[in-house]
Amino acid sequence: MSDPMQRAFEQAEAAARRGEVPVGAVVVTAEGQVLAEAGNQTEELTDPTAHAEMLAIRAATRLRNSPRLPDCDLYVTLEPCAMCAAAISFARLRRVIFAAYDPKGGGIEHGPRFFAQPTCHHAPEVIGGIEESRAGDLLKRFFAARRG
Amino acid sequence: MSDPMQRAFEQAEAAARRGEVPVGAVVVTAEGQVLAEAGNQTEELTDPTAHAEMLAIRAATRLRNSPRLPDCDLYVTLEPCAMCAAAISFARLRRVIFAAYDPKGGGIEHGPRFFAQPTCHHAPEVIGGIEESRAGDLLKRFFAARRG
Repeated sequence: MSDPMQRAFEQAEAAARRGEVPVGAVVVTAEGQVLAEAGNQTEELTDPTAHAEMLAIRAATRLRNSPRLPDCDLYVTLEPCAMCAAAISFARLRRVIFAAYDPKGGGIEHGPRFFAQPTCHHAPEVIGGIEESRAGDLLKRFFAARRG
Repeated sequence: MSDPMQRAFEQAEAAARRGEVPVGAVVVTAEGQVLAEAGNQTEELTDPTAHAEMLAIRAATRLRNSPRLPDCDLYVTLEPCAMCAAAISFARLRRVIFAAYDPKGGGIEHGPRFFAQPTCHHAPEVIGGIEESRAGDLLKRFFAARRG
């Protein structure tokens, strides 16, 4: 597995330990440098927009002092929702690499298919299904434990 | 014009004076109390996700100490994009009232039509086109001045 996806999984696992839905995201430059990484924090921040992708993108644009990251890639353990897909587009990210597909809430390969819409002004390259079963297992264990 | 939409316009006009794309948003309780209001701050915060709606929703959930606002309505001067529509849904807002339609970037009546997707788990009541020409004029003046 690529190092950035490994780090995204570590962020997801840390989120699970905090009682958050286990999703992690990492923003990496073209040279492979990690600019920002985050796990889901919707519970901790009482913020329904605090998905891992949003937090990582916001941290990266702050660091760069630019709202656009055209040389950067986002690694994330779950297919981004429409909110995060739109944020990825606004930030002009070059590439999105995600692990598990999300038929219930995904916004790239499911539902709104944001990047395929005429109202999407920048579509990154998308690579889905990397380490899909690991990401799926992590989510299943988390929700099973919460129901238990 | 309703008071909350008037306040949303004041936020939009203040955003224009700061050099931001003029969009304003207000979160109001069922009793008509303004919980939070914001103008677009993408430039000032170097944050591509800092749309007026996102900032107002985040401020309201922080104030309420709850990620959900099921008794609240959002007034906004422009049709929300897919990012903001998804955030509105995650926050379980009761109603969205917007002014100008946005054929180029809107995500409710255009493009992804987020609330109509099977992956959308909460769709608010939507009222569009309130004070449409005032909102359109504000945006047109802003972009004409930037090109000029």
